[in-house]
Amino acid sequence: MFNIVPLDRTRTARIQKKIDQKTKPIGALGELESLALKLALILDEHDSNEVEGKLTIADPLQIERPAMLIFAGDHGIAKHGVSIAPPEVTQQMVNNFLDGGAAINCFCRTNEIELEIIDAGILVPIDRDNLTQQSLGCGTENMVEQAAMSELQVERGLKYGRTVVERHIAKGSNILAFGEMGIGNTSASTAIQAAIMNLPVEECVGRGTGITEEQLKTKIRLISTAVEYHRKRLGEKFNDPIQVMASFGGFEIVQIVGAMLTAAEHKKVILVDGYIASAAALLAFKYNKSCFDYMVFCHQSEEQGHRMMLQSLGVKPLLDLGLRLGEGTGAALALPLIRAAASFYNDMASFDSAGIEQV
Amino acid sequence: MFNIVPLDRTRTARIQKKIDQKTKPIGALGELESLALKLALILDEHDSNEVEGKLTIADPLQIERPAMLIFAGDHGIAKHGVSIAPPEVTQQMVNNFLDGGAAINCFCRTNEIELEIIDAGILVPIDRDNLTQQSLGCGTENMVEQAAMSELQVERGLKYGRTVVERHIAKGSNILAFGEMGIGNTSASTAIQAAIMNLPVEECVGRGTGITEEQLKTKIRLISTAVEYHRKRLGEKFNDPIQVMASFGGFEIVQIVGAMLTAAEHKKVILVDGYIASAAALLAFKYNKSCFDYMVFCHQSEEQGHRMMLQSLGVKPLLDLGLRLGEGTGAALALPLIRAAASFYNDMASFDSAGIEQV
Repeated sequence: MFNIVPLDRTRTARIQKKIDQKTKPIGALGELESLALKLALILDEHDSNEVEGKLTIADPLQIERPAMLIFAGDHGIAKHGVSIAPPEVTQQMVNNFLDGGAAINCFCRTNEIELEIIDAGILVPIDRDNLTQQSLGCGTENMVEQAAMSELQVERGLKYGRTVVERHIAKGSNILAFGEMGIGNTSASTAIQAAIMNLPVEECVGRGTGITEEQLKTKIRLISTAVEYHRKRLGEKFNDPIQVMASFGGFEIVQIVGAMLTAAEHKKVILVDGYIASAAALLAFKYNKSCFDYMVFCHQSEEQGHRMMLQSLGVKPLLDLGLRLGEGTGAALALPLIRAAASFYNDMASFDSAGIEQV
Repeated sequence: MFNIVPLDRTRTARIQKKIDQKTKPIGALGELESLALKLALILDEHDSNEVEGKLTIADPLQIERPAMLIFAGDHGIAKHGVSIAPPEVTQQMVNNFLDGGAAINCFCRTNEIELEIIDAGILVPIDRDNLTQQSLGCGTENMVEQAAMSELQVERGLKYGRTVVERHIAKGSNILAFGEMGIGNTSASTAIQAAIMNLPVEECVGRGTGITEEQLKTKIRLISTAVEYHRKRLGEKFNDPIQVMASFGGFEIVQIVGAMLTAAEHKKVILVDGYIASAAALLAFKYNKSCFDYMVFCHQSEEQGHRMMLQSLGVKPLLDLGLRLGEGTGAALALPLIRAAASFYNDMASFDSAGIEQV
């Protein structure tokens, strides 16, 4: 369903040479250098264009029409009070996004990112012009008692994710960020992490946006029950990413997985936000490892499981600001670093061109 | 010489209340929230303007004409080879700044920051229109053998720092960042740190932009000798910030200290970059503690002493990207986070205005 070509690593040495010839000590721009390398591998198809040993293509790394796609969905498990907020808040926050009043609206305006809000499956549909309708249902089923959704819904969700991403690519976007809203979705993400990484729920679980000790105990008990139930139900098929998505949801997570895989298929840059977006990235990775080549991890969430998840993928994200909000906020805040990496790659003088002694 | 008013902390509760009423869980924007609080304390003089219990002032936090001032100076100690580059590179890099080819040029263009380059005392003066001439001499003396500069030069340097900052404030800047260029200036910074914090040189010293093990040993030996020499020479006056600046330099550091103190005097936001800029901040703090209220620490340098320095000041910087370049790059890269903090403070809806259940 997704045809993803891994990055051509034979180009790494040429790109690294270009970076090393910039007027700075080798490696002095730290993580921005590995970021520039990744961006060049994805976007700079002219890196091999040398004239008499000098690279001459101007501004090969263009960050075009960055887009933030926020998928919203509700979760059956939320009725057990695993979050600080009742499920109605999903809908209220979607309205807030559409009115321009949430944190992600501010950050997208400040950093010039196009924002689209998608109903992937919230409890009560909203009829507003600027909301993209691709609902998979009015909230998932309760994963503690049954599969959160059917395999057919997973398939449709992956396709819906494809649709919205391809629309942005057709308009010229080459960098796509994904946000989410869904009361209860750290619970789904924890179950996904426990299933995919084969970890005890206790090690993955966190306080979400700030639940009490008592709620945390309930959350652990419920997710553990769900994981055990589906492990028994599925047997050997338990680790299959389609089955994991069907078992635990959510509608927004499934659509993000499809969106990420589509962006990778089209060789675009994927900005991965915090815990929930990373759970989607983990599922996409499990589905097709090559998509990982196109991902930039933006932000270390305060959620306990996130650090382990990122360690297992071998990545250190760009920002660590103690955020625990979701909405794609970490990815939106990291975009200026992406632009900065592209700008030094494109515009910095080389030792040769500036007449500086190379050190 | 500097008349700095501490921030009025009685306003903290009012500002925090405004932040807590935004449509997000309490504290969910992590360090951006404490940043917004600091910006509001410095820049939002209308926070108390409530009408019937509601805050009504629009966009009170305006980030106006951010300016990056790079001070360049040479160091007598550099002739001992304490850096990966010879002293000539200071001049070459100043020309690179003036030509627009360095990393800081790229980051200032990308993030819309005005850039000014100041000759604070490089070895061989450069005659170029876009270089600000306020040289204190052709490099400092060798701190291992004598004071790097005279007390008169320190005084003039503080005044020069004032001049350039007041020019930007007169043009409307309310946020000032400081960068530096000077082969050998991590050595000066290490000596400053060891003196002010009363620490062994071994604990403060680092590899700068990347010296060898052998060079590191030489660097430690030379700085230790210098610190002991000036400690004996000065006796009880050794911890005085004016004496520390005179003993160890450099011309660029002294001017940054004057610039930071001036920015604080005018109640403007000070963006502190990496190790050398933080050594200047430490000196400014020692000179007048209240200036600390106006400082935002932007970036955790790879330089070993920097972490300790920031811990002693009780700050965690915004970015940790493994940079070890200087030039103000860390501060330039952090500016979008400042803008983002201001934007959520100004523009996010409150629970009340958005009709969302407060959690």
